[in-house]
Amino acid sequence: MKYEVELKFRLERAQDVEAAVLALGACEHAPVSHCDRYFNHPSRDFRTTDEAFRIRSVDGSNAVTYKGPKIGTVAKTRHEIEVGFDHGPDSLQKLDEIVRMLGFRFVREVRKSRRTFTLDVSGRDFELALDDVPGLGPFLEIELIAEADGRDAAEKAVWELAGKLGLSVPETRSYLDLLIESDGLVS
Amino acid sequence: MKYEVELKFRLERAQDVEAAVLALGACEHAPVSHCDRYFNHPSRDFRTTDEAFRIRSVDGSNAVTYKGPKIGTVAKTRHEIEVGFDHGPDSLQKLDEIVRMLGFRFVREVRKSRRTFTLDVSGRDFELALDDVPGLGPFLEIELIAEADGRDAAEKAVWELAGKLGLSVPETRSYLDLLIESDGLVS
Repeated sequence: MKYEVELKFRLERAQDVEAAVLALGACEHAPVSHCDRYFNHPSRDFRTTDEAFRIRSVDGSNAVTYKGPKIGTVAKTRHEIEVGFDHGPDSLQKLDEIVRMLGFRFVREVRKSRRTFTLDVSGRDFELALDDVPGLGPFLEIELIAEADGRDAAEKAVWELAGKLGLSVPETRSYLDLLIESDGLVS
Repeated sequence: MKYEVELKFRLERAQDVEAAVLALGACEHAPVSHCDRYFNHPSRDFRTTDEAFRIRSVDGSNAVTYKGPKIGTVAKTRHEIEVGFDHGPDSLQKLDEIVRMLGFRFVREVRKSRRTFTLDVSGRDFELALDDVPGLGPFLEIELIAEADGRDAAEKAVWELAGKLGLSVPETRSYLDLLIESDGLVS
């Protein structure tokens, strides 16, 4: 079983962090736009169980993702399963309809622009995502994928890389939660 | 919204029906093997609500299907939505795991060999499926896809084609239900 070990930081000056990431030798990939639709379960409350279920659309590619409860306290370590499905808006619409017919309750859409960087540090393949979330601003996510018995070491490595980039106080809430909170402040 | 209008007949002599289908000018497509995994809902009973949710694997291609309650009394007219997923056994396994993590309860696997024929009758595109279901034997399914306002006419057309093929007493239960019943008789 694979686990995603992740730390996320709100950025004051995104350019500085980007420069630091590139200075470490990171490789930048093509930027993408994520549009995620989050759903709550028909008979349990994912805000209580700390799970997530979403349909992600990235420039015409579609996927469903299930995220299990967080295991780490600060670093978000959680079981994540993602599968791609047929491309395009028609398939997206069909899956959305299936999910709603099954009683899942639409919560909110989360959109972001993401620039992804990969970085090898001592044989570990980090993925860094420089996100711009409309309504929230810029963030950096640092992620490693680990097997169950490597979770602690992976969490330590993620913290170390954050330190090198001058980041120390992570944001533990999801973009979804931050946006819902922000909706509440506005309305 | 598209509806599937379908009649299914248990066959005594599959060869005779196959010959009659071909004599009408039907076009035969490549045979396929279906492996369907049916799931029940986390908090409602699909046997009561008359819905169905399955993961279908056809020679490495994967799809999820939701079927709404039957509307017709004898001909199975129901809302059906299907979306294809990434190919191969790994994606099938991931999708199966997502569905189970979301609390769906595995019911049973239904396997069948299917030979599909398409047939144009007076401008209607019929799909005929000659199925061989291990444990149950041979069946013929006659299907039309209809919009909401064309359901009655489509149902009449399906009955007419069945009549031409000498078939008059449809099997209204699903393969899943027939197999579950057959499991009960055996155990």
